[in-house]
Amino acid sequence: MQRLQELLAAIQAPDQSLAQAAQDHLDNLTKPRGALGRLEELARDLCVMRGSLDLTQPKAAVTVFAADHGVTSAGVSLYPREVTAQMVFNFLSGGAGINVLARQAGAAVPGTANMLEGPAMTREQALEALLAGAAVAQGLMDEGVDLLIPGDMGIGNTTASAALTAVFCGLAPALVTGRGTGLDDAGLAAKIQVLEKVLTRRHPDPADPLGVLAAVGGLEIAAICGYCLAAASRRVPVILDGFISTSGALVAARLAPTAAHYFIVGHSSQEQGHRAQCQALGKRPLLDLDLRLGEGTGAALALGLVRAAVAIYNEMATFASAGVTGEPEQR
Amino acid sequence: MQRLQELLAAIQAPDQSLAQAAQDHLDNLTKPRGALGRLEELARDLCVMRGSLDLTQPKAAVTVFAADHGVTSAGVSLYPREVTAQMVFNFLSGGAGINVLARQAGAAVPGTANMLEGPAMTREQALEALLAGAAVAQGLMDEGVDLLIPGDMGIGNTTASAALTAVFCGLAPALVTGRGTGLDDAGLAAKIQVLEKVLTRRHPDPADPLGVLAAVGGLEIAAICGYCLAAASRRVPVILDGFISTSGALVAARLAPTAAHYFIVGHSSQEQGHRAQCQALGKRPLLDLDLRLGEGTGAALALGLVRAAVAIYNEMATFASAGVTGEPEQR
Repeated sequence: MQRLQELLAAIQAPDQSLAQAAQDHLDNLTKPRGALGRLEELARDLCVMRGSLDLTQPKAAVTVFAADHGVTSAGVSLYPREVTAQMVFNFLSGGAGINVLARQAGAAVPGTANMLEGPAMTREQALEALLAGAAVAQGLMDEGVDLLIPGDMGIGNTTASAALTAVFCGLAPALVTGRGTGLDDAGLAAKIQVLEKVLTRRHPDPADPLGVLAAVGGLEIAAICGYCLAAASRRVPVILDGFISTSGALVAARLAPTAAHYFIVGHSSQEQGHRAQCQALGKRPLLDLDLRLGEGTGAALALGLVRAAVAIYNEMATFASAGVTGEPEQR
Repeated sequence: MQRLQELLAAIQAPDQSLAQAAQDHLDNLTKPRGALGRLEELARDLCVMRGSLDLTQPKAAVTVFAADHGVTSAGVSLYPREVTAQMVFNFLSGGAGINVLARQAGAAVPGTANMLEGPAMTREQALEALLAGAAVAQGLMDEGVDLLIPGDMGIGNTTASAALTAVFCGLAPALVTGRGTGLDDAGLAAKIQVLEKVLTRRHPDPADPLGVLAAVGGLEIAAICGYCLAAASRRVPVILDGFISTSGALVAARLAPTAAHYFIVGHSSQEQGHRAQCQALGKRPLLDLDLRLGEGTGAALALGLVRAAVAIYNEMATFASAGVTGEPEQR
């Protein structure tokens, strides 16, 4: 627990006063004020997160965390459990969706963290997985990576994510459970029933985030939680993209609310519980392209927008340098 | 008129039967069916537009069409008319938003087409501008460009676009007029009044698209219209991104309805009339990042998604090649 306490203590609130100075720079560029919308917001947020008015193109890495979920035996997914391990080989050989999109966006996909098999976790196992995720992030940051994307793979993990969301957002399972890889109506109803049973039996206490994670989470979600916490502790932005990675981030924000300052939600999930997660984190997703693959794919696409925001911030001419008449005072 | 008739006659409906074959390929990739959402839709649409199941990364070009609008003397914009010419120099020296975002997305920005000055056009002038835009596209396609992005710059051009939208969509000016570069409430009300006067005085006939373009359009909008028509005539996709470029595309689709098959709407405009335009074209924008700069910036960002869709289509492993268990039959 001491290592977790140290990690949490290292997470500082960013200096919000940089936002105005960053916006002043953006307002000097040759465009009407605010005309680049969320790209300007991104550039401003990156300045605040990084604690600097000098932005550089991030060195980005995607880490795909994979884990088995014992709950698959309750029939909550279309796919059998062994697909998780098969997909890990696919990630390692570079043929999965996230490999393609990370290459496209200029991000590395480091070795997949294939977590231990197990249907549920003890508190110690959850902590161990969390610290393992933090260690992966720390290793990457030690190598100069300054933007992190957690991806996920785990047949059954939308069930665990729905359970976490129900507990932390105080919502009934029916309001936060979705079709995962494509359940039909009967499958969705059965999944909700499984979740209702799980929550009734385990009765997790939202005031004890680590306990909730152990009771109804998953090993990869615990690792993503630690990965997000470690990033925040070094002011490194994290791009989240879906129901599973945002679940990990939600646990992180319950352990250290300040951590949420360093999170960007890159893509909106098709899973209905994602909306509640974003609301809880105070975030608005950048993209909504109907993706429901996970793996970090939506975040990899959003990385392109982050890169565009940094380029705009650094490369656009100012009104003065280009000799363009600036915005007049309004009546 | 003969050159226009030839251009329109060259626009053919694409072979929709390729959509199923493209989707069959996408369904074999290691992901649940449809899990890459709009990226899959994009890859499928590109196959249909290009008439081929072999997709290659497009060679993309952005053309920024600029023009003066006499209507600026009626006080419809925050910025004075001379900013149009000043910004043209900014485009040419590479410091404008579109230069930065086009570089980022791997697209060239060819020489800006700085159109003639003039408050309104004769039918002949509109035709000449349309054919000039078509010639620019033809020149680029002759050089191997196979994806075109029309950008726009013209103080006053949201007024012209609102007029075109009101006429072609049969809507009152108040329903299709927005704040442009940032008008306040009084400015917006005055702009709507100007538009109401324009439409009452000119009374354009929606059944005569070229006549409408001449009466209430703009030279850069006419050029964008021709640029879109020329692209469609050679099955080259066009990414549109906002109120002005979509106005040009709307005129194109009124001249040749089949042309709309080749249009992708990359970004949703903040101008309220854009929704009516998209509906008229049967399109759903890919991005909504609160951009209101024009210049093709939203389309340049969407080009990143087109590139991602092509990469997914070409580079992802199949279930068979990766040895991953495919989707089971549902109950």
